[in-house]
Amino acid sequence: MSQQFDVIIIGSGPAGQKAALNSAKLGKRVALIDRETSLGGVCIHTGTIPSKAMREAVLHLTGMALRQVYGESYQVKQDITMADLLYRTEHVVRTETEVIRNQMQRNHVTVFPGTASFLDPHTIRVTRKDDEFQDIKAGHVLIAVGTEPARPANVPFTPGKVIDSTELLTLKHLPRSMTIVGGGVIGTEYACMLAAVGVKVTLVNSGPKLLEFLDDEIIEALQFRLRDGGIRLRLGESVAKIEVHGDDVVATLGSNKAVASQTLLYCIGRQGATANLGLDKAGLAADNRGRLKVNEWYQTSVEHIYAAGDVIGFPALAATSMEQGRVASSHMFHQYTEAPSTLYPLGIYTIPEISMVGSTEQQLTAAGAPYEVGIARYREIARGQLIADPHGLLKLLFHPQSRRLLGVHAFGTGATELIHIGQTVMAAGMPIDYFVESVFNYPTLAECYKVAALDGINRARRPNYEAPEEPIKVAA
Amino acid sequence: MSQQFDVIIIGSGPAGQKAALNSAKLGKRVALIDRETSLGGVCIHTGTIPSKAMREAVLHLTGMALRQVYGESYQVKQDITMADLLYRTEHVVRTETEVIRNQMQRNHVTVFPGTASFLDPHTIRVTRKDDEFQDIKAGHVLIAVGTEPARPANVPFTPGKVIDSTELLTLKHLPRSMTIVGGGVIGTEYACMLAAVGVKVTLVNSGPKLLEFLDDEIIEALQFRLRDGGIRLRLGESVAKIEVHGDDVVATLGSNKAVASQTLLYCIGRQGATANLGLDKAGLAADNRGRLKVNEWYQTSVEHIYAAGDVIGFPALAATSMEQGRVASSHMFHQYTEAPSTLYPLGIYTIPEISMVGSTEQQLTAAGAPYEVGIARYREIARGQLIADPHGLLKLLFHPQSRRLLGVHAFGTGATELIHIGQTVMAAGMPIDYFVESVFNYPTLAECYKVAALDGINRARRPNYEAPEEPIKVAA
Repeated sequence: MSQQFDVIIIGSGPAGQKAALNSAKLGKRVALIDRETSLGGVCIHTGTIPSKAMREAVLHLTGMALRQVYGESYQVKQDITMADLLYRTEHVVRTETEVIRNQMQRNHVTVFPGTASFLDPHTIRVTRKDDEFQDIKAGHVLIAVGTEPARPANVPFTPGKVIDSTELLTLKHLPRSMTIVGGGVIGTEYACMLAAVGVKVTLVNSGPKLLEFLDDEIIEALQFRLRDGGIRLRLGESVAKIEVHGDDVVATLGSNKAVASQTLLYCIGRQGATANLGLDKAGLAADNRGRLKVNEWYQTSVEHIYAAGDVIGFPALAATSMEQGRVASSHMFHQYTEAPSTLYPLGIYTIPEISMVGSTEQQLTAAGAPYEVGIARYREIARGQLIADPHGLLKLLFHPQSRRLLGVHAFGTGATELIHIGQTVMAAGMPIDYFVESVFNYPTLAECYKVAALDGINRARRPNYEAPEEPIKVAA
Repeated sequence: MSQQFDVIIIGSGPAGQKAALNSAKLGKRVALIDRETSLGGVCIHTGTIPSKAMREAVLHLTGMALRQVYGESYQVKQDITMADLLYRTEHVVRTETEVIRNQMQRNHVTVFPGTASFLDPHTIRVTRKDDEFQDIKAGHVLIAVGTEPARPANVPFTPGKVIDSTELLTLKHLPRSMTIVGGGVIGTEYACMLAAVGVKVTLVNSGPKLLEFLDDEIIEALQFRLRDGGIRLRLGESVAKIEVHGDDVVATLGSNKAVASQTLLYCIGRQGATANLGLDKAGLAADNRGRLKVNEWYQTSVEHIYAAGDVIGFPALAATSMEQGRVASSHMFHQYTEAPSTLYPLGIYTIPEISMVGSTEQQLTAAGAPYEVGIARYREIARGQLIADPHGLLKLLFHPQSRRLLGVHAFGTGATELIHIGQTVMAAGMPIDYFVESVFNYPTLAECYKVAALDGINRARRPNYEAPEEPIKVAA
């Protein structure tokens, strides 16, 4: 007879972990399935964590944050190698994996090593590498299998030459030049890191802008900074052909430009890892990119089967995936009555880093919602001078009458931390006057909130239209 | 005839600046008096800003934050000199001074260079270095003169050997060893910086604990870390005698121990800089440490004369001084009806840094107020692993039933920034469940709030008393 659980969770990344812990804390019997070597998912092994460990190494070893202080050629370590960049990665990955394993043990989550496939809507077969298998059953299932890099047939993947983001982390040597195809989060984050350590980077993006979900002003600042840092941007360009010619990889763009480099990193279109799940046996079907559609409670079209994390698409960030896992598991065990909050931050670990919460200017404009803007630049506050990040900025969007916060956009050192103050004010429904009347530690970046709020309030006071002092003369 | 203003502000530090700007924005005629070379006050010239610029240099050049990563002997620069530490200071001081000068100009604040003294309660004489003077009048006066280091007669101040914190910034060479007398904010912050660059530091404090206004658990962690970092603490010890013997300074403690070092930094008892203000002409008197007493609106015993900033005593931090200046100037021009918020953070730039908002455990215990505790250690979250700060911690104190936040205590990297999230939740009156239900960027230190809240809620669920499984046997 199959072992019976309250919930089977397929995938142990951020969504699966949080769903498992939350279900266990509710006293449920929880099964968690993942490959032996994959506990923690893409996040821990080939995604968020290794790339952030690499980013810390880049920031420290280049000393780039301090070039405003010590001069343009300042560098903490000369001749940075791939080994330098990955020095800490393995340690962090191992520690984080152990943290997860411990949490699951302490909370009596039964971990099944292996791959999962549906036999019927309530039964999952777990197959181990050695072809041993075991069937388990549950009243609920959560699909949190994440994504894997797409490997289209017309891209000639070649070790060390034409690679995906998983292989990037196994490179032995830093290439002198790299073409990155795909200006999403992954492509743009790696472009920043590689350029920082001296790799000549060309970033090709089919859309006219990088990271189009961000506020236009932030995208503009990012693109300016990337170009200023030596990255060549090819925007609104498709890649027609990729060929390996000896030591070179040549990408021919749809516009007939040829971009040559030592290595090409292909970062377009991660696919939901659903191909081998036997979705049809559960009465489910994925879209053409392997992704599943869910409602606001993360239920698929089959009521007792939920999906969460990267497999359901945007925003595909660890933080939101955790929350999805928590909401899905709470819903299956009737813990929620209200719709979950949609107020979540986005954090992008480019250099400089970016974060936002709430709406962008273009979203508000499209919705016909009036707003005012208040901006603080890091150079206006003491902490910005101390850390020598003059270009950092914090931007508040707020309603001109009620002064409620509608969106917060941060660009610069500590942006991903800084955003949470604004997020809390939005959650509490407080007006931006809160920032004016609050004391912030001095010197901190948090003072930007006060400066930006004052800037916004002063703008909102001015008439929107100031008559010119002299009539404008129009040539006949 | 004397020039007439709505308000005369004596002193251009954080309290004076904010009062001047706020009054100007209300359309008032504002006079601001300070010595030509002192615009910005102690904060900019000899206090907060230079010490924080030095701290940034210490953190970077030692690379000490990364010793968990690269090994105990890791150092970015060998043989760090005083010039290295002060490299950026002058630039930041000049920039910040210019920022203030610009702000005053743009807001039409009349700056009078010179020193101030009362002729009568509404008239101030401004004297320039060259003994020229000018008398000005106003309906209101704000005394924001700050403090200066005390120089007691029994301390043999000697350039380079027995110094105060102002002279420390002018030292040409880093001493091999230093005795710091006074374990307040200034003494403790400098002890951390100097020990980090290899100076053998002994810190003498008359009280039994450093920074006694902090939460006991945080003080304990700080003292442990300071000792672990090679600082010798002499707590509960007074200094009976200080003598210079050739190359050595010897401090004899009240307990008859002798502490010898190359230099002694005397950091006890800053004095309100009120001695030459002619307070008696205004009908005012300072206490024996030169400080003025004020009510909640920062009014002195003479209704139209206010005082704010370090001159009124604790907490004597730039951030709170700014707020005091804002509140005082709002009150004098009838802008306030409610008492100002007392919810302000304290930020201490020790290494590691410390911040708190709300109550400490000992305050709540003394008040008989029940509370529960939730703790997150940086090592439990991914960001803590990435920045290699395992010892950092965030501690939440909350009411066991309502779960309202009563206090937040942070110790570690970014503590002074991190505290503002908890402060906002306290200001909004939200329970700690907010942290559980919110999405925080991953990986950030902000996740500590979620981990600490979950820890606290789990503890609060447990019965306060668990009966032992077997009766305890008491020896007859």
